Amino acid sequence: MSELFDPVFGAEAVTAVTDDRAWLRALCAVETALTRAAARIGSIDQAAVEAVEKAAAALAESDPAELGRQSRAGGNPVIPLVTVLRERVGPGAADAVHPGATSQDVMDTASTLIARAALAVIGPDLSACADAAADLAAAHRATAMAGRTLMQQAEPTTFGALAAVWGAGLDRAAAGLASVAAALPAQLGGAAGTLAAWHPHGPALVAAFAAELGLPAPDGVWHTDRTRSAELAGALGTAAVAVAKPATDIVLLAQTEVSEVHEAAPGGSSAMPHKQNPIAAITARAAAAQAPGLVATLLAAGAHELQRGAGAWHAEWPARTALLRAAGGAAARLRVSLTGLQVDADAMARNLARLGPDHPSTGHAPDLVDRYLRGRPR
Amino acid sequence: MSELFDPVFGAEAVTAVTDDRAWLRALCAVETALTRAAARIGSIDQAAVEAVEKAAAALAESDPAELGRQSRAGGNPVIPLVTVLRERVGPGAADAVHPGATSQDVMDTASTLIARAALAVIGPDLSACADAAADLAAAHRATAMAGRTLMQQAEPTTFGALAAVWGAGLDRAAAGLASVAAALPAQLGGAAGTLAAWHPHGPALVAAFAAELGLPAPDGVWHTDRTRSAELAGALGTAAVAVAKPATDIVLLAQTEVSEVHEAAPGGSSAMPHKQNPIAAITARAAAAQAPGLVATLLAAGAHELQRGAGAWHAEWPARTALLRAAGGAAARLRVSLTGLQVDADAMARNLARLGPDHPSTGHAPDLVDRYLRGRPR
Amino acid sequence: MSELFDPVFGAEAVTAVTDDRAWLRALCAVETALTRAAARIGSIDQAAVEAVEKAAAALAESDPAELGRQSRAGGNPVIPLVTVLRERVGPGAADAVHPGATSQDVMDTASTLIARAALAVIGPDLSACADAAADLAAAHRATAMAGRTLMQQAEPTTFGALAAVWGAGLDRAAAGLASVAAALPAQLGGAAGTLAAWHPHGPALVAAFAAELGLPAPDGVWHTDRTRSAELAGALGTAAVAVAKPATDIVLLAQTEVSEVHEAAPGGSSAMPHKQNPIAAITARAAAAQAPGLVATLLAAGAHELQRGAGAWHAEWPARTALLRAAGGAAARLRVSLTGLQVDADAMARNLARLGPDHPSTGHAPDLVDRYLRGRPR
Amino acid sequence: MSELFDPVFGAEAVTAVTDDRAWLRALCAVETALTRAAARIGSIDQAAVEAVEKAAAALAESDPAELGRQSRAGGNPVIPLVTVLRERVGPGAADAVHPGATSQDVMDTASTLIARAALAVIGPDLSACADAAADLAAAHRATAMAGRTLMQQAEPTTFGALAAVWGAGLDRAAAGLASVAAALPAQLGGAAGTLAAWHPHGPALVAAFAAELGLPAPDGVWHTDRTRSAELAGALGTAAVAVAKPATDIVLLAQTEVSEVHEAAPGGSSAMPHKQNPIAAITARAAAAQAPGLVATLLAAGAHELQRGAGAWHAEWPARTALLRAAGGAAARLRVSLTGLQVDADAMARNLARLGPDHPSTGHAPDLVDRYLRGRPR
Repeated sequence: MSELFDPVFGAEAVTAVTDDRAWLRALCAVETALTRAAARIGSIDQAAVEAVEKAAAALAESDPAELGRQSRAGGNPVIPLVTVLRERVGPGAADAVHPGATSQDVMDTASTLIARAALAVIGPDLSACADAAADLAAAHRATAMAGRTLMQQAEPTTFGALAAVWGAGLDRAAAGLASVAAALPAQLGGAAGTLAAWHPHGPALVAAFAAELGLPAPDGVWHTDRTRSAELAGALGTAAVAVAKPATDIVLLAQTEVSEVHEAAPGGSSAMPHKQNPIAAITARAAAAQAPGLVATLLAAGAHELQRGAGAWHAEWPARTALLRAAGGAAARLRVSLTGLQVDADAMARNLARLGPDHPSTGHAPDLVDRYLRGRPR
Repeated sequence: MSELFDPVFGAEAVTAVTDDRAWLRALCAVETALTRAAARIGSIDQAAVEAVEKAAAALAESDPAELGRQSRAGGNPVIPLVTVLRERVGPGAADAVHPGATSQDVMDTASTLIARAALAVIGPDLSACADAAADLAAAHRATAMAGRTLMQQAEPTTFGALAAVWGAGLDRAAAGLASVAAALPAQLGGAAGTLAAWHPHGPALVAAFAAELGLPAPDGVWHTDRTRSAELAGALGTAAVAVAKPATDIVLLAQTEVSEVHEAAPGGSSAMPHKQNPIAAITARAAAAQAPGLVATLLAAGAHELQRGAGAWHAEWPARTALLRAAGGAAARLRVSLTGLQVDADAMARNLARLGPDHPSTGHAPDLVDRYLRGRPR
Repeated sequence: MSELFDPVFGAEAVTAVTDDRAWLRALCAVETALTRAAARIGSIDQAAVEAVEKAAAALAESDPAELGRQSRAGGNPVIPLVTVLRERVGPGAADAVHPGATSQDVMDTASTLIARAALAVIGPDLSACADAAADLAAAHRATAMAGRTLMQQAEPTTFGALAAVWGAGLDRAAAGLASVAAALPAQLGGAAGTLAAWHPHGPALVAAFAAELGLPAPDGVWHTDRTRSAELAGALGTAAVAVAKPATDIVLLAQTEVSEVHEAAPGGSSAMPHKQNPIAAITARAAAAQAPGLVATLLAAGAHELQRGAGAWHAEWPARTALLRAAGGAAARLRVSLTGLQVDADAMARNLARLGPDHPSTGHAPDLVDRYLRGRPR
Repeated sequence: MSELFDPVFGAEAVTAVTDDRAWLRALCAVETALTRAAARIGSIDQAAVEAVEKAAAALAESDPAELGRQSRAGGNPVIPLVTVLRERVGPGAADAVHPGATSQDVMDTASTLIARAALAVIGPDLSACADAAADLAAAHRATAMAGRTLMQQAEPTTFGALAAVWGAGLDRAAAGLASVAAALPAQLGGAAGTLAAWHPHGPALVAAFAAELGLPAPDGVWHTDRTRSAELAGALGTAAVAVAKPATDIVLLAQTEVSEVHEAAPGGSSAMPHKQNPIAAITARAAAAQAPGLVATLLAAGAHELQRGAGAWHAEWPARTALLRAAGGAAARLRVSLTGLQVDADAMARNLARLGPDHPSTGHAPDLVDRYLRGRPR
């Protein structure tokens, strides 16, 4: 995270649910859920559960930097987290900490919690963008403007038809993300993914564990099947595409020589008071531009060796977090840009007049708006 | 395409449905469908339709290089294609060629046809990979082997459990691709995406056009909403991940010092007859490795300006074709690798013995196989 | 290659030196050079050398598809190439074919030849772009236009100053590529990179081999040190950036509402005769847009395992060829766009007038042009 | 930055010179240098300079989050920074703050300072890796081991020859980075890149400004020529390749069944005390794996529109910072892995024995080591 730059890229809200504190809380929540689930099916007594709950709750609010330093030696924060938890609960309850699990169980499940929290921020922002686009489409279903292909004036269309294209992409992206989010499961497999430590109660434990966290139970142990990660990356990349399109159009339509739209609160310049920079759209583009490379990183890290990736697994962590922030930031900034976007129908008419008096009509543009509005998901 | 290298990367079958000939045929098929659809709702007479059908059928088998040379001036092959078609049908039927359409209608719809044809190759190859993985899982549900995390022996698992992880990823990827493929629609909007030339019959024309080609009718004009392209890219990237995982494992398990699996027809070496290179898995990895960068290219090209992308649209063509070939090649090569994969249970046992006599059992590994097999899609 | 699409992306010239035929010739040239070099230091007699020369010359003109089909089994075309060559020269000279070498020696050296041939096309195109930019800078050093920051009019500049920025980037990219090209060496190491078969004459053989091909001798065996590949990728990516910048500006300045520049031969539209699409710049952007993802692919494929990459090596081949074509195509298309670019100084003045009468001067813009022109490489 | 994860990826040292505090200090240093330079050539009096120095020094240690919040409206932190500085120096010296400059001058120059500071960390780490590799090469120039091609045993080589390949790549990458770092210049152009506010003293001001910061003066105004950014990205990508290669080999050679090398302080596992995870190499791989996608992001953001990129400029900031941290983290972790790497010559001999008694010798492997060591840069 960067307190200096996150606001520029709209990332604060996603950062708040994906930062060190959020990770530490998620890791502790997962350990607590595991202890509770193991207690449900096994021999951990209630006192030990309470000791773990208490220790985990305290650790969740401790200094992440301290845990970070201890994470270097083993390559992930779960190893020192477990050590600290066991120390804190004391020998009587040490066995109740992290019973039968492996670091990846805790990291992957925490990553699911983090991703779902981030998607709970991104989704509504995307939907708000789509709603704003739909409102613009409805308000301007018949507002004629020049259609521009290859950035040359071509034939008339309406601003509403353009906004409907924006909205359709945003709706599609939001639906795709929601679908992926709903399916993100817990992870539990133990050291080699065989649930060996809990045999023969492994499946029951997995179900209890997922239920504790409100997550779907997985249909298997997916330690090294990263197609879920790839699907999430793809859906976030699609969201970035859906945002980048209207953001780019707004920047183009706001050009001095075009001046057909203006943001409600354009960015200024200390040196040039006449400037009206569509800064929300500009920074939405910048945030969205982070996505393709990050998606590539996650896909390239998809082939985890045998029973645990020797680097590819770790490589997912920063890339996934950055991708969540990029997609979320893009949506947040576009939401600002679209909300209250000022549409200058007169300027549209003036620019359109360049096409000459006998240019064709706007055709089905208004009908396409109507059709889009009728077909929107609720 | 490359006749020299395609076989190495398993791309021949996808290349055959995505090469210049395939494109030329698809473009001609789209023009024919458009003429037929326009005839259904309008004033094109049957003689003109037949003239177009005949000219397009002939052009489809002409030299793509000739059309290629003529494509440079306008930046896409549809412009010269329409010119040639109009010349060939003569003045009496020239208006029946490309009526009311724009180049992007034809390119995007042809691209849909091409993608669906490629997915009709890739899908079965992915499914065959999944079936082969499932067969291996079933056959070796209890074949003990060392589980290796971070490439170090950890605890036992079974080869079947590993193969089930492979299969689960492959099944997921195949399902995702099938879902995307089924939704890829036709494209028709005319010069500025308003269906102006066909007003008030635009929607009827679009429906007829799509029906002619056996494609879903679009729910709007998606010239510059490229979220569909992004979804397709994501699904192909996920397929590459699903392939790269087992391919990597096979290469690792086939190492001289591990020797737990062997391909049925390993690659040799003229200089070193003792070598048993798992070449199908190796080249599957190589093909899959093309995917992440190509997905990034398609996502980065997702923000098409206003009513037609000024470069981003064109940028999709080579990247999408290359991505289809990469994913398809990866699946084709993995299919060869998995089919008849030789599993050396004795070697697995020998290697596992390094863990010592009192290592834990294989836990739920066999159960996980059973669960995977029961839950497979049909 | 694609005869249908290469002309759109300007790739014909690079394709001609990177296609199947070019590869087959390069592979045969390398085998011939190896035989000659081995003869220089060893016991291969002149008759055998001539037999290899003759057979390789004939094979170089044979059907690449046939060799392609035979390449599948071993994963590269060198294995069947050597088999065929040995058959053709007969038992008496079979030992003179591919003496002591490994497939990667031949592939990597051929790849160097191919890359250098491509760079001999790309370099002049980049330089011609830079020259055209310099000519525009000189001709318009004082032609006032609106400077636009964040696509909003800001303060005046001159068109010459903008063209000088274009030229500076193109000069820098051309110099970087030339530097990388000059250093690309031959590869020779034998089966495990130890030059074992030629001991104690290995270094002499390597020198003779490189000299036969007119290539720098390598300073070691670089089979699995791919930093050279990474540097080439980076230089090609930089070239794509240098091209994309002026191409983007031309598209923006050619917009209907701006109309400050026009290509000499803009693309038309069958439906809309008024359109003046800057199609060379548009397709230059499209070609350049392929580069970032391909660079990522080559970088991600940079960690070749131990003494030969098991997939990463193979993954370089299609990506490097595609990257050469993308960078070359981008330069070729930009060259067309810049050559004869029409600059409308009146339109620039009209648009600039929006800033009002008391806007600042063009400052040092003309001086920056002069400085750029003086500092250009020769 | 992430205090929790940076240690895992070795990024602490680079993070310390690229974090919010470092940025704030760099921005303030640039503003101070600008005021001083303007004073040298103009009418700013010494009292005003001292006021700016004092205010900037104080602001440099203030809360970055506060400035971050104020940065949202204008899209970069320079706008509020200038506002605050002007408030703090009071009306008498307000004109001495940010005289004639634009936000991009300050951001780009600060970015140069940040990059150079990061490269001053990364370079020595890369060189230390190369030195460690050279030491291993020297110590094991004749230590025979199996050469493995496509991960199959092929012919013998020596561990020294492998380490020499590592070192050669690391030396090459370090030299490339040093070359790029030395050339990174200051940026100064004013609102539209014409140095208009300082006419006719622009060039003198630029020289004075660069001298104040100890940076090379630029050979022009490079606001929208991003080939320098592309070159830096390429050099960092090459560094990641140079690191990923030995890291991958170490992970492979440390496999349980190979056991030829061991890290001095391998990572453990709370559940499995027998594990010896080469965790420094594993996390070096993970850090290096971030690079290709980030390079692609920076290249894709290379075409800045006209006189200032409308999103592409902003997109560089997080990607460049992440890339510096990734490359630096990779080098830092590899340094740990290589330093004190334990080489088991007996295991190498045992594994090599699989090739049989009459395998060829190690050929020129020791000579290649000698040659590498003689040719190393000093």
